[in-house]
Amino acid sequence: MNSKQKILVLFPNPNPERNYKIIHTAHEFTSVCPVTGQPDFGKITLEYIAEGLCVELKSYKLYLQSFRNDGIYFEAVTNKILNDLVELMQPRYMKITSDFNMRGGISSVIEAVYQSPNFSFLSNE
Amino acid sequence: MNSKQKILVLFPNPNPERNYKIIHTAHEFTSVCPVTGQPDFGKITLEYIAEGLCVELKSYKLYLQSFRNDGIYFEAVTNKILNDLVELMQPRYMKITSDFNMRGGISSVIEAVYQSPNFSFLSNE
Amino acid sequence: MNSKQKILVLFPNPNPERNYKIIHTAHEFTSVCPVTGQPDFGKITLEYIAEGLCVELKSYKLYLQSFRNDGIYFEAVTNKILNDLVELMQPRYMKITSDFNMRGGISSVIEAVYQSPNFSFLSNE
Amino acid sequence: MNSKQKILVLFPNPNPERNYKIIHTAHEFTSVCPVTGQPDFGKITLEYIAEGLCVELKSYKLYLQSFRNDGIYFEAVTNKILNDLVELMQPRYMKITSDFNMRGGISSVIEAVYQSPNFSFLSNE
Amino acid sequence: MNSKQKILVLFPNPNPERNYKIIHTAHEFTSVCPVTGQPDFGKITLEYIAEGLCVELKSYKLYLQSFRNDGIYFEAVTNKILNDLVELMQPRYMKITSDFNMRGGISSVIEAVYQSPNFSFLSNE
Amino acid sequence: MNSKQKILVLFPNPNPERNYKIIHTAHEFTSVCPVTGQPDFGKITLEYIAEGLCVELKSYKLYLQSFRNDGIYFEAVTNKILNDLVELMQPRYMKITSDFNMRGGISSVIEAVYQSPNFSFLSNE
Amino acid sequence: MNSKQKILVLFPNPNPERNYKIIHTAHEFTSVCPVTGQPDFGKITLEYIAEGLCVELKSYKLYLQSFRNDGIYFEAVTNKILNDLVELMQPRYMKITSDFNMRGGISSVIEAVYQSPNFSFLSNE
Amino acid sequence: MNSKQKILVLFPNPNPERNYKIIHTAHEFTSVCPVTGQPDFGKITLEYIAEGLCVELKSYKLYLQSFRNDGIYFEAVTNKILNDLVELMQPRYMKITSDFNMRGGISSVIEAVYQSPNFSFLSNE
Amino acid sequence: MNSKQKILVLFPNPNPERNYKIIHTAHEFTSVCPVTGQPDFGKITLEYIAEGLCVELKSYKLYLQSFRNDGIYFEAVTNKILNDLVELMQPRYMKITSDFNMRGGISSVIEAVYQSPNFSFLSNE
Amino acid sequence: MNSKQKILVLFPNPNPERNYKIIHTAHEFTSVCPVTGQPDFGKITLEYIAEGLCVELKSYKLYLQSFRNDGIYFEAVTNKILNDLVELMQPRYMKITSDFNMRGGISSVIEAVYQSPNFSFLSNE
Repeated sequence: MNSKQKILVLFPNPNPERNYKIIHTAHEFTSVCPVTGQPDFGKITLEYIAEGLCVELKSYKLYLQSFRNDGIYFEAVTNKILNDLVELMQPRYMKITSDFNMRGGISSVIEAVYQSPNFSFLSNE
Repeated sequence: MNSKQKILVLFPNPNPERNYKIIHTAHEFTSVCPVTGQPDFGKITLEYIAEGLCVELKSYKLYLQSFRNDGIYFEAVTNKILNDLVELMQPRYMKITSDFNMRGGISSVIEAVYQSPNFSFLSNE
Repeated sequence: MNSKQKILVLFPNPNPERNYKIIHTAHEFTSVCPVTGQPDFGKITLEYIAEGLCVELKSYKLYLQSFRNDGIYFEAVTNKILNDLVELMQPRYMKITSDFNMRGGISSVIEAVYQSPNFSFLSNE
Repeated sequence: MNSKQKILVLFPNPNPERNYKIIHTAHEFTSVCPVTGQPDFGKITLEYIAEGLCVELKSYKLYLQSFRNDGIYFEAVTNKILNDLVELMQPRYMKITSDFNMRGGISSVIEAVYQSPNFSFLSNE
Repeated sequence: MNSKQKILVLFPNPNPERNYKIIHTAHEFTSVCPVTGQPDFGKITLEYIAEGLCVELKSYKLYLQSFRNDGIYFEAVTNKILNDLVELMQPRYMKITSDFNMRGGISSVIEAVYQSPNFSFLSNE
Repeated sequence: MNSKQKILVLFPNPNPERNYKIIHTAHEFTSVCPVTGQPDFGKITLEYIAEGLCVELKSYKLYLQSFRNDGIYFEAVTNKILNDLVELMQPRYMKITSDFNMRGGISSVIEAVYQSPNFSFLSNE
Repeated sequence: MNSKQKILVLFPNPNPERNYKIIHTAHEFTSVCPVTGQPDFGKITLEYIAEGLCVELKSYKLYLQSFRNDGIYFEAVTNKILNDLVELMQPRYMKITSDFNMRGGISSVIEAVYQSPNFSFLSNE
Repeated sequence: MNSKQKILVLFPNPNPERNYKIIHTAHEFTSVCPVTGQPDFGKITLEYIAEGLCVELKSYKLYLQSFRNDGIYFEAVTNKILNDLVELMQPRYMKITSDFNMRGGISSVIEAVYQSPNFSFLSNE
Repeated sequence: MNSKQKILVLFPNPNPERNYKIIHTAHEFTSVCPVTGQPDFGKITLEYIAEGLCVELKSYKLYLQSFRNDGIYFEAVTNKILNDLVELMQPRYMKITSDFNMRGGISSVIEAVYQSPNFSFLSNE
Repeated sequence: MNSKQKILVLFPNPNPERNYKIIHTAHEFTSVCPVTGQPDFGKITLEYIAEGLCVELKSYKLYLQSFRNDGIYFEAVTNKILNDLVELMQPRYMKITSDFNMRGGISSVIEAVYQSPNFSFLSNE
């Protein structure tokens, strides 16, 4: 478990018998560009269908805040958040969408998905 | 029948021969955080295809108001509303979407679906 | 033919060789709540693919106005409009979506669909 | 070739090896109601996948302007534009969407599609 | 490698084991109409799933700026950007969407897609 | 006191020592065109600074509903509402703004103001 | 009285004792550019405080439609509408605001005001 | 000092030499209708220019939450909040704007202002 | 007359007897940063009350396009446009508002006004 | 000159003969709550009329970034930015508006203004 993962608090999924979706949208993510040292700002959306564990909201906020002064690329931070959460929570399905503010007139979105090999979407969910 | 279910008034589906969808969006839901005691605010959307019973709108409003001073998590309240209604109404299809206001810069949505084993969506509905 | 259906004027579909869609959105529908006598307000959307007949727009407006002082439930009025039009026009496909204004902080949408047994959607239409 | 079709200028598709989509949205269409003589206003959207020919933008604007003082129904003008363009351009796919402004509180949309028998959409396009 | 391709800087995809999507939206694209010499303005959206290489954001901005005083048609510039990037980056999937501002009351969108023969979308991505 | 005024219920201003403003916006006003018999729809905004009396909200809703089947011009209904309320309530200041939906592509707003001769606005209110 | 003024129908101001404002916004104005012959489109807003006469809404619509095929500049049409109406209606106050759609990336607004020498605004109106 | 005022925590104005404005907008106010017992929902905006004291944000949130289960009219709660704060803080200027959600198709806003006799706005502030 | 001023074509004000306002908003202005050589994008709004001369719209567009490859600061270009136009047109009143797109997360607006010493606004214009 | 002021680079006002307004809106301001240590996010708008000096945009961005990890109250940071800039630039007029994101359902705006004793606004500026 890496140092950022240790910030996360998990709790038992109250309704594991149902494939319901949980979506947390963090509107105030900020990190630092690893090349220029300039701050980046964006919105991180976490969508998941839990297996046995859910992430506690306040600890998730602190986890995201831990990137505040880290130098990290858009692509890397998106995949890292997904990997950190999947490893701990073993969800049925998880998606991270990072929506970064404009730099030089260009805005960027990164979308990464994990799906458990044991799970397939039912068509009406 | 639990105490909250007793608030709900049902009436016969006037057109059970057709799989039509009914959507009620409650813009003023509020409950209390079970940990901090702080009030939470959100929007609850109920979508369903009735079998034999529909929910009367005013009784549904009073049912939602009964959570006003309850301490309950986002995930739990969404699944409880779905379970309470499914048990009473035995619908063909039902979905609850809870959209909670921002806390610490993070907004949350929970989506839970029930589908009767005897029912499958027609592709154009 | 009921008294409301008599208000409707139909005209021959100018292009029956093509499955094209016609959508009329009435932004000023009003009827009366059968319980309280209070007026309800909403938006009614009619979408259809004609077989041999189209509905003339002004007569459709007058048909909708005929509900102005009728006491009728949301679910019933949506299904009645669909039934009245299907019976007269025998369309390939028809959908009525009623979007009613908030009452007690809750807004409601009812969606009802008819599809002719002789017709199936082409996937790119 | 009818008199309106003669206004249209075509040019060779620069990339016929690819099924790419071209969308032109004309925000200032106007014609005249054939019954009342009152002007109608709307937005016409042309989407197509070219085979060998593309339509030149300025000539298309002049083609649409040629309807300015014509008395023609919503359904008819939509199908006529589609027929005129399909006959000249022989596209792989073409769709006309006409979105007419409110009359008597009702707005109208007409959608008509042509698809070449030799063409089928690839699922990711 | 043409002169515009030389502007582009590529870097290794940090997570090639995952089919994640990268979207860069350039809000300030401008080129010149090849017929009239008048400037055109638009928004260019690049979406892709990388194989081994990603495009560095600043070099991509400079690549797009290199069109500033070029005379080129909407259809041609969209396909050229797609071809230039596909040739260099060999992505699994790539789409260019160009959204050009109104001219004579008509706005235009061009959408072009490349998909590697070795790749097919997984349904939940 | 005319028959419509009798619908209105007044209550004592709880804070007559302060010139505070009360604004009620009725989003669902409807009456009938005196010439064509067609229904009109609009939004009525009442702003006032009370002297001794305030208008009770539910009775005000019923007062506005009493126009539902009356044939009356936009200008006349706006002035009548202002006159009915001023006569009963003797406010320090009152304004009625009627915002009627489009007819023949034209929307209309009527604004009428009453100010008591004994009252003048303070500049920071 | 010029030929366009003859289209206008006036009626007596029902409340001349009050300085209330009447605003009619025509969303579908079109005329023709006197130089290029290309159609122009815009929105014309008429605001006035009547003395003895009001303009009837349908006749005003027909008056504006009479410009449909006239070649006239933005500045000229705005001043002509103001002059035509002021001459006939002798209002206390009148303002015409013309808001024309983009041409070559530039949109234009023209605002012209008439105020009767016998009238001055009260500060709270 | 009443029981609600005791919830409020004040701190010294850090810049009393300047007439700067502080605006706190509470998006989640709720109280109860004193007649029907139904909950009301609204947005409360506090604007003020401090003399010697500012209100601490968290205590102000708790103060507003204390109305959660109180039965109180719109007009009364607006004036009470203003009176409670003015009495404790003795500000140079203070305004409360309450914006309540629709009931029966009518939304309401109440605006109340206090201004110290020793203070007058500078024109550019 | 400088080289840019020579691009401008003027025409006589058709209604110099009236102080009416003309507003042209150019949505597609671009110039180059004098330090970095990077392109800047913005919106330029020209408002004026003419004395004897108006600016012809197409020539004004070409005038603005002449800055396309000039290196010039935001503050300087705003004042230069105002000075160029005032010198040629001698207006009663003129205002230039430049609204530049975000750079490094900061957007900028520059507003500059000229008023003829012989002119003062009437309060209702 | 304090350590933050040293970050700021000034340049001579190119048009000191005119009272024109410069507005820079920083959309990505962040600092830290001095009590809880939680990050705050907001938008800072600087408006000013320069005397002899303007602030260079990139240095202003770095100045604002220097607050990134400072613990400081909303009221204090707004006044500090105003004081730092006024002291260095001696402007004719300057206003700072800080618009902070919601905390506990409450958003906050602080507005502080400086005006030189030697300067008064002209009414049309």
